[in-house]
Amino acid sequence: MRIVIALGGNALLHKNQSPEADTQRHNILVAARAIAKIAAGNELLITHGNGPQVGLLALQAESYQGVKPYPLDILGAESEGMLGYQLEQALINAIPERQVVALLTQVLVDPHDVAFSEPTKPIGAFYPQRERQALSEERGWVLAEFKQGLRRVVPSPQPQEIVELAAIRLLIDHGMIVVCAGGGGIPVIRDSSGSLSGVAAVIDKDFTSAQLATALGADALLLLTDVDGLYQGWAQAEASLLGQATVSQLRAQSFEAGTMAPKVEAACRFAASTGRCAYIGQLSQIADIMAGQSGTKIVQG
Amino acid sequence: MRIVIALGGNALLHKNQSPEADTQRHNILVAARAIAKIAAGNELLITHGNGPQVGLLALQAESYQGVKPYPLDILGAESEGMLGYQLEQALINAIPERQVVALLTQVLVDPHDVAFSEPTKPIGAFYPQRERQALSEERGWVLAEFKQGLRRVVPSPQPQEIVELAAIRLLIDHGMIVVCAGGGGIPVIRDSSGSLSGVAAVIDKDFTSAQLATALGADALLLLTDVDGLYQGWAQAEASLLGQATVSQLRAQSFEAGTMAPKVEAACRFAASTGRCAYIGQLSQIADIMAGQSGTKIVQG
Repeated sequence: MRIVIALGGNALLHKNQSPEADTQRHNILVAARAIAKIAAGNELLITHGNGPQVGLLALQAESYQGVKPYPLDILGAESEGMLGYQLEQALINAIPERQVVALLTQVLVDPHDVAFSEPTKPIGAFYPQRERQALSEERGWVLAEFKQGLRRVVPSPQPQEIVELAAIRLLIDHGMIVVCAGGGGIPVIRDSSGSLSGVAAVIDKDFTSAQLATALGADALLLLTDVDGLYQGWAQAEASLLGQATVSQLRAQSFEAGTMAPKVEAACRFAASTGRCAYIGQLSQIADIMAGQSGTKIVQG
Repeated sequence: MRIVIALGGNALLHKNQSPEADTQRHNILVAARAIAKIAAGNELLITHGNGPQVGLLALQAESYQGVKPYPLDILGAESEGMLGYQLEQALINAIPERQVVALLTQVLVDPHDVAFSEPTKPIGAFYPQRERQALSEERGWVLAEFKQGLRRVVPSPQPQEIVELAAIRLLIDHGMIVVCAGGGGIPVIRDSSGSLSGVAAVIDKDFTSAQLATALGADALLLLTDVDGLYQGWAQAEASLLGQATVSQLRAQSFEAGTMAPKVEAACRFAASTGRCAYIGQLSQIADIMAGQSGTKIVQG
């Protein structure tokens, strides 16, 4: 089987963990060992979140006065380097019989995507109210108010096309395990002359993973996180795990925005357009999820 | 022809330039347009330096107090992300008819390499003498004295093996332009159980490029920088450009350590072991160098 595995940000670094190098290395090791359980006989493509990591790189860049902080597309590329390297190395160590490779990934977005007129994705540090004018005028940032202060928000446009798709397909076709599209990929736009350039945006990693899985003809899309699946009546006290659900059942419900909602939508897109199954579940239960004994299986219909 | 092109650190960022994002983007654009001149009909693999960039990432990491700076192998991976993305994008724009892909690259080194007992490569910031004890005890750094103060020095071991060689070969064989081995590659060692782990070291980019060129059966190795070739009697007033030289002629001379010496040695290794030609010259003259009208051609013998 050809399987696309999306590792949630929470699977690499929990919300309450500080992004220390050792913590991250440990979590990546755990993720690689879990993935190793389903490697035999399968073609694997691994994507991953980068929220805490790109946040850290932004804070580090802000702290150093010598050079203006680099734009968000470059910070995203740095985070793909940081996490891609570590995931690749951990996978090589966990699955020594396979070749593993990590690719930088650009994802084309539409400059007319409605997301650009309504930035919603918070990134980087919190700032006090008094810095509002300086931040919005000097840096051109859109700011939103949160409990802890002001925060920059950027657009989250839909992925249109994976720039490196041909290379990814070639590597997967030859049995190599590919790590790519970290953080949802580096968002780029194509101008009228055909040239690519980066934009200050963040693409949802699960949407990019669904796009990749569909384009590569994957047999399954696995969206892994730190909860064990979708819950019927998730907001209520006696919620029960959904073992299986159809696209139309899920699209009739609403899920927690920011965490489960994009996973549900990504799973629905993949199942609806390919007729194949998507799975949402816990990283540590990866083998059970594929065996239908854990997590939520999303099917066409 | 299959050509390995090594872009010197100076070709991406001159010593007297501040590493601002715009400066770097401009230089990368210039490099990509130069490379485009020899793209037609040739298989290309591009490597590049990362000195100023990994230096900046180290300074940024030091400036932020919230998280301990990440180890050098991870900073190297971040720089491969940053530069690999930008080079890939600039090459796609300059050579739209070709596929371009950037790979994270690990390079195996020998833990018993003599370089580990004698660190020589300076990296990161300068520190005042009074911080010597704290830096060497708390961080385990080896420090060396420079005019501007203390600086961390790390080993520069020889590259033994490119971990992702099979993937790189596959992509090149299929006509894709590959950007890889940024900064000489991320140095890793293999322990007795076969597992890889990163080490605090810096591999010479030109040595890694020679290793890659040899392993991939390249027809030519192009070492590009901001000077126009090797000079006979380079330290004297009336030095003259060497249009061609044999390995034995060059090995009988001494060249400026830190800049030309590694290029000369890398060129000699490639020419001696393959019988094919290596070239040292200026990025802007890339087409003339390949035509034998500029730069220095290094041949076996």
